[in-house]
Parts: sequence; C-alpha cells; structure tokens
Amino acid sequence: MIAVTILGNNSAVPAFDRHPTSQLITINGTTILVDCGEGTQIQMMRYKIRRAKISHIFISHLHGDHYFGLVGLISSLGLLNHLQELHVFGPSPLQEIIELQLKLSNTILPFQLYFHTIVKEGLLLVGSNYEVSCFNTNHRIECYGFVFCEKKKNRKLNLEKIKEFEIPTSFYKKLEEGIDYTTKDNRLIKNSDVTFPPTKGKTYAYCADTKYDEAIIPFVHGADMIYHETTYLDNLKERAELRFHSTSKQAAWIAKKACVKKLLIGHFSSKYAELDEFEKECKEVFENTAIAQEGVSYYV
Amino acid sequence: MIAVTILGNNSAVPAFDRHPTSQLITINGTTILVDCGEGTQIQMMRYKIRRAKISHIFISHLHGDHYFGLVGLISSLGLLNHLQELHVFGPSPLQEIIELQLKLSNTILPFQLYFHTIVKEGLLLVGSNYEVSCFNTNHRIECYGFVFCEKKKNRKLNLEKIKEFEIPTSFYKKLEEGIDYTTKDNRLIKNSDVTFPPTKGKTYAYCADTKYDEAIIPFVHGADMIYHETTYLDNLKERAELRFHSTSKQAAWIAKKACVKKLLIGHFSSKYAELDEFEKECKEVFENTAIAQEGVSYYV
Repeated sequence: MIAVTILGNNSAVPAFDRHPTSQLITINGTTILVDCGEGTQIQMMRYKIRRAKISHIFISHLHGDHYFGLVGLISSLGLLNHLQELHVFGPSPLQEIIELQLKLSNTILPFQLYFHTIVKEGLLLVGSNYEVSCFNTNHRIECYGFVFCEKKKNRKLNLEKIKEFEIPTSFYKKLEEGIDYTTKDNRLIKNSDVTFPPTKGKTYAYCADTKYDEAIIPFVHGADMIYHETTYLDNLKERAELRFHSTSKQAAWIAKKACVKKLLIGHFSSKYAELDEFEKECKEVFENTAIAQEGVSYYV
Repeated sequence: MIAVTILGNNSAVPAFDRHPTSQLITINGTTILVDCGEGTQIQMMRYKIRRAKISHIFISHLHGDHYFGLVGLISSLGLLNHLQELHVFGPSPLQEIIELQLKLSNTILPFQLYFHTIVKEGLLLVGSNYEVSCFNTNHRIECYGFVFCEKKKNRKLNLEKIKEFEIPTSFYKKLEEGIDYTTKDNRLIKNSDVTFPPTKGKTYAYCADTKYDEAIIPFVHGADMIYHETTYLDNLKERAELRFHSTSKQAAWIAKKACVKKLLIGHFSSKYAELDEFEKECKEVFENTAIAQEGVSYYV
C-alpha cells in the first residue's frame, strides 16, 4: 500500500492557509518526503506527523517553494537528536546550498546525511520492497518527477494445488519466496505448479512542476495514482505555457492519455481563493480526479 | 511610538504551535522585521500583516531559527511584484547564502535588494525619525542585538509664552522646527524662549540570543522596553551557560540592572509546553515582565 499525505498544495507564494509543495509518502513501511517548501516541518507538526520517521527526501527542482523548508527540517532533526541516516535526492547544487548553511551555523548533525545528486532520469533507489525512479519534466529549470513502485516479491499460494500435493503449512513461507518443494519420497514439486505469480505492486507518480508535455506519459502510464500540477484554470492556458506550468484540463488530459486510475491535482496559484472549479474542469476530461487537500492522506 | 508584534517566540525547533524567532517593529511609520525564522511569512499571513510593508530586515545571527525564512520571504515579495527597495542587515555571509539561492532558481527580483553586512557594533541606520544601532551579544557564533530609537525633532510649544509674544498660529510649525520668530516691529523672539526641547524618543532593544552577560547593559540602559531571551527556566542555569542561552531570572536581572521600563521574554525551549512559570520567575526579580505572545503587539 502507498499512502500520500499532502503537506502543501499551493504554488509559489503561500496563501489562503495553503502552503508550498510537500508530500509525505509511506510505501511498505518506509516514509519518504517529496519536496519540502518553507514551513513543511511546521505542517508536519500540525498534522501530528513525526519528523523522525523520514528516511528519504526527494527534491524535484530548486525553485524555493519546493525546497526552502529542507535546511530547517534537517536542522530540527539534528536538534531533536535524530540518529537514523537520512538520504536526500535532488538536482545539483542542492548539496552545496544545504551544507553551506549547516556549516555557517556550526551545525554538527548527530546522524549521517547523504546527498545523492540527480543527473538524469532513471532508477534512483531500490528498497527491499519498493523502488523510486525519476523522469524529466518540462519546467523553467531542471526538474524531475518521481515514480514510487511497490515491489511485490511474494508469490501467491494456490491452496488447491498445495493440498493436492500435501505440502505442510511450515513450508508455505518458502513457497511464497519461490522455492520448490521436495516430497518425502523425493518427488520435486515445481514452485510454479503450486503458486501464482506475485500481484503487481501499486504505483504512484509525482509529476512535479511541468508545462503540458506528453513526453512524461510513458513514465507514468498505467499508474494507480498520479499527482499533476494545475497551477491555473483552463482559461489561463497561455499564462501556464509562458510560465512552464499546467492548467486543470491539461493535467486531466495527461491522466487520461496515460491511462492512470486516479489523478490528484495541486500547486494552485495564489490568485485562487476557491478550488472547486479546478476539480470540475478536470472531471470534464478525467472523472477520477481529487484535489490534493492539505492534511489529507490518499491511499493507493 | 514603537510597536513590536511577535511572529515567533520559540527557540530552535518549532513546537506547541510556537514558531522560530521573528518580530515586526513599526517605528514612526517604518516597518522593520527583526530575524526571520522559517515560516515567518506564513505567520504574517496568519496575523493579516502585509509582507509588502517591510522596508528593512535585521538578522541577528546565522543560526537557522533566526533566518531560514528570509529567502522565502524575499522570493515571495518578488513574486508578488513588490517594487519598494528592501534593505537587509546581517552578519557575513548572509548575502552569499541568499544570493546563491536566488541565482539557482533564476529569480530576478522586481525590486532593489540591498545587503548591509554588519561587521561591528554601532550605528547601522539613520532614518528621518528613527535610528537603529547594534551591539554584540555573547552567543555561540557572531550575534548582534539591535536598539531602535525614535528621533523626536519637533520642539514642544510653550503656549503661554507664544500668546504673550502674539506669534501667529501660521508660524507654529516653524517654531516646532526650532526657528526664531521676528515680530512685525523687527524684534527677534528666540525660539528657546517660546518652546520646550523635544521630548525624548522611545527606545526598544532586541537582545537576540545571548548568555547572561552584563556587557550588554550599557547598550540597553534606560530603554522603554527590551526583549531578552529566556530559553530555560532558572533551574537549568548550567545548561543555559553551556549553550550560550539565558534563563528567566538572568533576563530579569539584566532588565533590572539596566533600569529598563519593561521586559519582554521569549525564545522558549521546545521542552516547555507551558510558559507561565517563565513570567513568574522573572517577576520575582523584575515586576514589569511580559511573555512575548505570538500575534500580539506590544507598544512602547
């Protein structure tokens, strides 16, 4: 299961009690932060999320509304005597910016902080039961989207067959791991004869900031849920194009063309006090759309 | 009149809906921000304070809880198309940190941003009706306190004498400016014979982060109000000493010895959920003490 908790759903300037971009992703027990606008740690406190749970942070690009909260979060983890190692992935020179500020404040972190500079699209992280890869989006500066996939390793038991071959329950776990069974009279029962392949893991794709660009479709195709920015309503298509952002309907078209199951929308311009129209416009193109509401968790 | 509005009253880590240090100072029509911890601009929105009013920002030192919100605030002013020039005063290399981040995000500000690197104590800024000076505090890294003084230029009219010399009301403004009056029959009336000297301007001193150090007393002596940090209650005097911070009673002793009129206390450690005890302990030494409450304005 993947859970996506929205910490900030606004674009550049905080407004209407909406905050700059940040999302918390829980994937098979691992807690990952995606983007970290100013005030992210304060939002986490508001929603009673323990900062110390985070082991990985992915920063899509170096516009301030996506990373100005990072150095504060890292500093706080240090002051809270966090000990678990922390891995930060982002474009160059994120590492330089963060390390400069930590150095100037004489901060010595009590945990290992690893920076991983993203240089091109592809696989970024392989966990025991999940993977994270990235793809280029079409924005004003170097910018990456991220795809989070569950890895399902366990095969499913075919209970009918298992009973037929009289395999003891103590061997079930090994069957799930793909191991063959040998009977007492030395007959080999091939694993594939008594199990089904693993179910497909869930996939969530975060499309970061981007103008409308169908080039991202292959990377998010068939995802269970994608987040796509909708900075503007559809009547401001030209402004969106000019500023390398997307409109409501453009996000919905990406969702539709990529055959995803669900669309989350966010990164709303501060010019909009109300958001209902975004959902309405998207649903004209792609029905299963939801506004990424701050403090709400969306499950895949 | 000087008004001090508290935007953040907590120490390093935000907690209990208390935020890192920031104060807004309004002095004779000029709006000044002192320190700018993460989330300061969000606090301003919460308390309906227009970010665009700020013309000067003073940063006491480069611990993150005093400046991590600065680059976000500057970026937002740019995005909001703020046009008034902005002056930032702080220790080196604040300018380098901010400029690096603006450069990396391709930010071109629509207003002039001037950095003034503080290198030693003394006068920093002379406005038409106020002055700002700074003094060294005793902290783990280079750190400055700030003194904000009203300049009262206008002399007070001595109405009794003015009537006696039959000076017309149209000349009152010039009398306030210190100009002598010449009667119709060419008699010189000396200004000092018909006016009193200007009243003394109000003074507010912000003592930043500091351990207990009587060396700051001469700089804040006789102030109408001072803000002094009280990171810990008095039973943690040793921890305060070790971390270059102060306790409740230490702040109160500085206020008492400096003969100030009022003491504001803040920069509370995140270990304290309740703050009443801080006020109680201070008042045992210095009666006119108030907790710097977020969202509240204190008038001098």
